[in-house]
Amino acid sequence: MSRTEPAGTPLGDRFHLYDTTLRDGAQREGISYSIADKFAVARLLDDLGVGFIEGGWPGAMPKDTEFFARAAAGELTLRHAVLVAFGSTRRAGLSVTEDPQVRALLDSQAPVVTLVAKSDVRHIERALRVDVDEACAMVRDTVSFLVSEGRRVFVDAEHFFDGYAHDPDTALRVIDAAGQAGADVVVLCDTNGGQLPLGIAETVREVADRTGLRLGIHCQDDTGCAVANSIAAVQAGATHVQCTANGYGERAGNADLFVVAGNLVAKLGMPVLPEGRAAELTRTAHALAEIANIAPDTHQAYVGASAFAHKAGLHASAIKVDPLLYNHIDPAVVGNDMRVLVTEMAGRASLELKGAQLGVDLADKPEAASSALKKVKALEAEGWSFEAADASLELLLRAEADDVPVEAPFRLESYRVVLEHRVDGEVVSEATVKVHVGGERVIATAEGNGPVHALDAALRQALRGHLSWLDSVELADYKVRILAGKPGTDAVTRVLVESSDGERTWTTVGVHANIVEASWMALCDALVHKSLRMRDANDADTATQVADTTAQAADTAAQVARGADASASR
Amino acid sequence: MSRTEPAGTPLGDRFHLYDTTLRDGAQREGISYSIADKFAVARLLDDLGVGFIEGGWPGAMPKDTEFFARAAAGELTLRHAVLVAFGSTRRAGLSVTEDPQVRALLDSQAPVVTLVAKSDVRHIERALRVDVDEACAMVRDTVSFLVSEGRRVFVDAEHFFDGYAHDPDTALRVIDAAGQAGADVVVLCDTNGGQLPLGIAETVREVADRTGLRLGIHCQDDTGCAVANSIAAVQAGATHVQCTANGYGERAGNADLFVVAGNLVAKLGMPVLPEGRAAELTRTAHALAEIANIAPDTHQAYVGASAFAHKAGLHASAIKVDPLLYNHIDPAVVGNDMRVLVTEMAGRASLELKGAQLGVDLADKPEAASSALKKVKALEAEGWSFEAADASLELLLRAEADDVPVEAPFRLESYRVVLEHRVDGEVVSEATVKVHVGGERVIATAEGNGPVHALDAALRQALRGHLSWLDSVELADYKVRILAGKPGTDAVTRVLVESSDGERTWTTVGVHANIVEASWMALCDALVHKSLRMRDANDADTATQVADTTAQAADTAAQVARGADASASR
Repeated sequence: MSRTEPAGTPLGDRFHLYDTTLRDGAQREGISYSIADKFAVARLLDDLGVGFIEGGWPGAMPKDTEFFARAAAGELTLRHAVLVAFGSTRRAGLSVTEDPQVRALLDSQAPVVTLVAKSDVRHIERALRVDVDEACAMVRDTVSFLVSEGRRVFVDAEHFFDGYAHDPDTALRVIDAAGQAGADVVVLCDTNGGQLPLGIAETVREVADRTGLRLGIHCQDDTGCAVANSIAAVQAGATHVQCTANGYGERAGNADLFVVAGNLVAKLGMPVLPEGRAAELTRTAHALAEIANIAPDTHQAYVGASAFAHKAGLHASAIKVDPLLYNHIDPAVVGNDMRVLVTEMAGRASLELKGAQLGVDLADKPEAASSALKKVKALEAEGWSFEAADASLELLLRAEADDVPVEAPFRLESYRVVLEHRVDGEVVSEATVKVHVGGERVIATAEGNGPVHALDAALRQALRGHLSWLDSVELADYKVRILAGKPGTDAVTRVLVESSDGERTWTTVGVHANIVEASWMALCDALVHKSLRMRDANDADTATQVADTTAQAADTAAQVARGADASASR
Repeated sequence: MSRTEPAGTPLGDRFHLYDTTLRDGAQREGISYSIADKFAVARLLDDLGVGFIEGGWPGAMPKDTEFFARAAAGELTLRHAVLVAFGSTRRAGLSVTEDPQVRALLDSQAPVVTLVAKSDVRHIERALRVDVDEACAMVRDTVSFLVSEGRRVFVDAEHFFDGYAHDPDTALRVIDAAGQAGADVVVLCDTNGGQLPLGIAETVREVADRTGLRLGIHCQDDTGCAVANSIAAVQAGATHVQCTANGYGERAGNADLFVVAGNLVAKLGMPVLPEGRAAELTRTAHALAEIANIAPDTHQAYVGASAFAHKAGLHASAIKVDPLLYNHIDPAVVGNDMRVLVTEMAGRASLELKGAQLGVDLADKPEAASSALKKVKALEAEGWSFEAADASLELLLRAEADDVPVEAPFRLESYRVVLEHRVDGEVVSEATVKVHVGGERVIATAEGNGPVHALDAALRQALRGHLSWLDSVELADYKVRILAGKPGTDAVTRVLVESSDGERTWTTVGVHANIVEASWMALCDALVHKSLRMRDANDADTATQVADTTAQAADTAAQVARGADASASR
């Protein structure tokens, strides 16, 4: 049997950060993890340093049974976390040794088992259809059996808060049975999510006093208070907190692991993650959103892209005085960044700050800054948004500020895209582009899965041979947003394209009534931006050779690269 | 001067539900309200029954100045709410009567003014650059002046919680100055959003005891606790709570009006809205998301489309016993619905429940149910999602369960879409469809703003004259989601189309590597679904005539219509 205690955190076993993304989180509408996804999620959570990872319900879900079998066969090695199997107490009227579901929990070879047990008399009598004596026996038998087989056992007391409010004696009998049978932690679950923090704190304190059990907390977000309820429970004495990545879960979701961890570390000063790992919270949150295939919540506390973004002109100028006057923590603590947004509400001060972040100095060029601000505002009025498209914004700012004008490496003459749904049902897309590049006029035609793919393929075919770096640039992500038009006019489409050259990523934007034209704009900006970076790098090289100021030019190049990385990291 | 107290709520002026969507909410990244938008927001909030609507900052933002001018000229009549102008105390070293910003507050003619005042000594000294005496004088002078001019004044004590923790005497001096000068409410603001509920409750209680002032609360969501903090403050004695629609606001946002109101009404039993208006929370939340042009958060507590959605097979079968065992409140209280989701995790029980909601009886047809479940699972594996596309799901279920097969009113032979970016820069889209309808083969060509618009126009042209109801059906919304492909394969596009016939709306889905083909699928399903509803209505009519069972048939038709409305309402 593997170890049953988390490793690497200063608090060791005294405090449990317990993740149930792979079981309770997967109940969220739209999430469907493959087994490969489940391994990827577990590895990211282990890297972050959570104490326990609940992998699923072996025996009930075939995918979960396979997950545990392959994990036990060596496909999953955890450095910090302990793997947990979730399951139910024995069936009513059946001996625990004969219950196939309990057997599957043992067979999973997970060193820790979390058992769910009903603790609300109404659920015991109406859903489970047994009496309280049998409900307690089911808990007692299953816990004892698993403990005797060498497992560490936690018990999730389902519907505990509702049950305790309705009939405290029954609720306490169930959890006492769990404790007496050898469960290490009894987790008080707000299964229906209806609680508020002050009430949670009071109940946790009272139950701790009355039972002396080690208590955990599991909150759902139906009052919008799952994080707050979890933190209140910890302040009231709970030493085990169950969360899911980004709060994924059924209905309104669960307590968000990253926000709970941010609060425990930054607000309560509890080192619940290994040294230095809190700075991985933002990266991990986004990676887990990626695997779940759910757009990250930009306004998520601590780890959202906007969590430290400042829009108001008022604040933007004061931020220059001292960023900590306007941020509740240093964003670096959780691996996030402060951002200044360029919007119609922002003034010159915001745009200059943003330019400096992008490596474009506007501070000494008031006319360029004013002209750039005017253009940004005009484009935003048409539906453009530069908040997520730093590369396009950089092009716009440099066009105003640079002494050497920003030039595109090619010029479009025209394109045509033909899409057909043929009589035989086949769907085909074909694009032809006519471009001028390196002094030549090139015509190229290519097919693709869809119109944008075909257009991208045709453009690449036309430019190949002229741009040495072209093949290094890949389309990493593509997002489409339909913007409602103003009354009487038509909707426009905003396309965001994320490109990558293997070392960095950058985002560009296009807006048009025609989705293909909007995509074309963003694709072109992506290539122009890359060619600009290549020119900057060449300039830096030349400067080095000519003036022999090697160290200084390297600094400049490094600065540019850092600027690019910084802009790419959002 | 208009009235300064909210009307229509049982609590009257004793409790203030105060909305600042139009000022603080508009700081959210991506939001840009036009003046027409601002009027629409204010009317929806007034209909809901909030007590105060902060319209903006006249004098500082030209759009806001115009908003107040047009409101005062009669463009905005509020039944329940009082309109509030937000502004700042007088400038340092300037007489209040000479301050143009204060003058603009008077000129706005808003009966209530909320003044922001710095209450953290660090902000007073470092951002405002005055001493505490002058800061207090600025508060005192401005409040007194506005009160003497007949205004009701609230004071937002900015950064109060941070300031009180750092230097309680200064924080209390500022708010005492506000109270003594005649401010009716002093609003304690967690401007940087770093607080937690237990701390908020303690501070609010302490400040109430030490000052005797009427206190309000304004929370930001940087710890993910804005709602919980607001509720904790109310439990500790605050009688005025500032929120924004859907929690819109800078960084992680503000306290969400709809979730706060849900908690106050359903958890604390406080009638903060006029009789019967809580049931408008869900509708209002979605309408305000629409105006902000931000996709509603499906997992929002109380009002999200998934807030009462159940996925787990375990729960879905138990829900049949008693829905309230698995919902923290009756969803109807806040105008929401319980939903059962059709997903790979769901079994037959969920699909039957869902079918019943859609008016398709699968309970007595086990083979049809199994076959439908198999199809749903296979399609979901390809990227289809029926969770948001009830109309497509209904078509699928009826194809399995109906005795009379579901037939499309037309059949596609082929289509072709041509998109051109011409030499002169013009972008054109043209579509040709060949369809069989009413025994004829029809070819039609149309232009559009983009490929989908052109295709929709060509199809409508082909079908016009054959389908009497065609012109009543409009494309109400169109959403695109790019789904990351599995490794080595290409991305697919999921399109959701919302259609409306003026009476009801319905949503259909299409999935394909080609966005135009995916859109085509969803557009076709939308028309098939409408034709099915027309057939059902005709059947009901015929039944009435033939069997003379008028009352019963009307019931059936009404049931069908109710089913449609229910499915359309999500």
